[in-house]
Amino acid sequence: MKNRDLDQALMREALRLAGSAARRGEVPVGAILTDHGKVIARSANATLRRKDPTAHAEVLVIRKAARLLRNHRLEGLTLYVTLEPCLMCLGAMVQARIARCVFAASDPKVGAASTLALPRVQKGVNHRFPVEGGCLGDDASKLLREFFKSRRRKSPAAG
Amino acid sequence: MKNRDLDQALMREALRLAGSAARRGEVPVGAILTDHGKVIARSANATLRRKDPTAHAEVLVIRKAARLLRNHRLEGLTLYVTLEPCLMCLGAMVQARIARCVFAASDPKVGAASTLALPRVQKGVNHRFPVEGGCLGDDASKLLREFFKSRRRKSPAAG
Repeated sequence: MKNRDLDQALMREALRLAGSAARRGEVPVGAILTDHGKVIARSANATLRRKDPTAHAEVLVIRKAARLLRNHRLEGLTLYVTLEPCLMCLGAMVQARIARCVFAASDPKVGAASTLALPRVQKGVNHRFPVEGGCLGDDASKLLREFFKSRRRKSPAAG
Repeated sequence: MKNRDLDQALMREALRLAGSAARRGEVPVGAILTDHGKVIARSANATLRRKDPTAHAEVLVIRKAARLLRNHRLEGLTLYVTLEPCLMCLGAMVQARIARCVFAASDPKVGAASTLALPRVQKGVNHRFPVEGGCLGDDASKLLREFFKSRRRKSPAAG
């Protein structure tokens, strides 16, 4: 399978996890960690259910993979996530020493993918890796849009 | 108690937690979350023991407080930590909506306290709060220095 096809196949799996988060009332974001195309761990956003502000899909999948591999470093792994990571999640990827991050939809509000490229930030980061956006971005954006639209319908006052 | 005295008293408690982490072989960093001077939760760095790259003292204390308060938002709380937070921990504080962060020692390598002041980063962060350094910084630096010195003694090859 070509690299681009492999990325899309793996992102489709992350999108399925995002869909399952939506059905539980969580903002639909899914993430998987892979080792040369093999899935090591899967997670979806669970901040509300877990009452945990750090329970973003990326942090959960990193914690799960580290537990499974019995190693707090995840060198060589690629993380697929359906939404552009925030500052915390990027920082978690730095701590875990992942090799690459691929995300689907951009997050114009709190997305921090470009932060790692800032010279001032690079100075304070002891691990660098590529963060690539746009893999199945339209599918992920559609899922998020539909989630927020249905949530507004359910609570018009909060709209 | 004056604000500065209160900050120092609370940081002393965080330093005790850092000391206990050192005795377990973890890099000595301790953190507490407080509500108007009352301690809500305490944690210390546990990345090695937990095999979890996200198990920094700050992330652990945020997760603990959120669980105790049954709320993924920790508005109004102040976080004391013995070492300047990294990018991940700052991002976790943004997610938790804490009101203020006080740290002891600066971390010239991966400390990210000043990152939040960068205009490009502020644009992508939906919550702002003061991050103040230097409270009992010398005590925290001494603890860290002694820890790394003793670790080098134990494994000279890794020195």
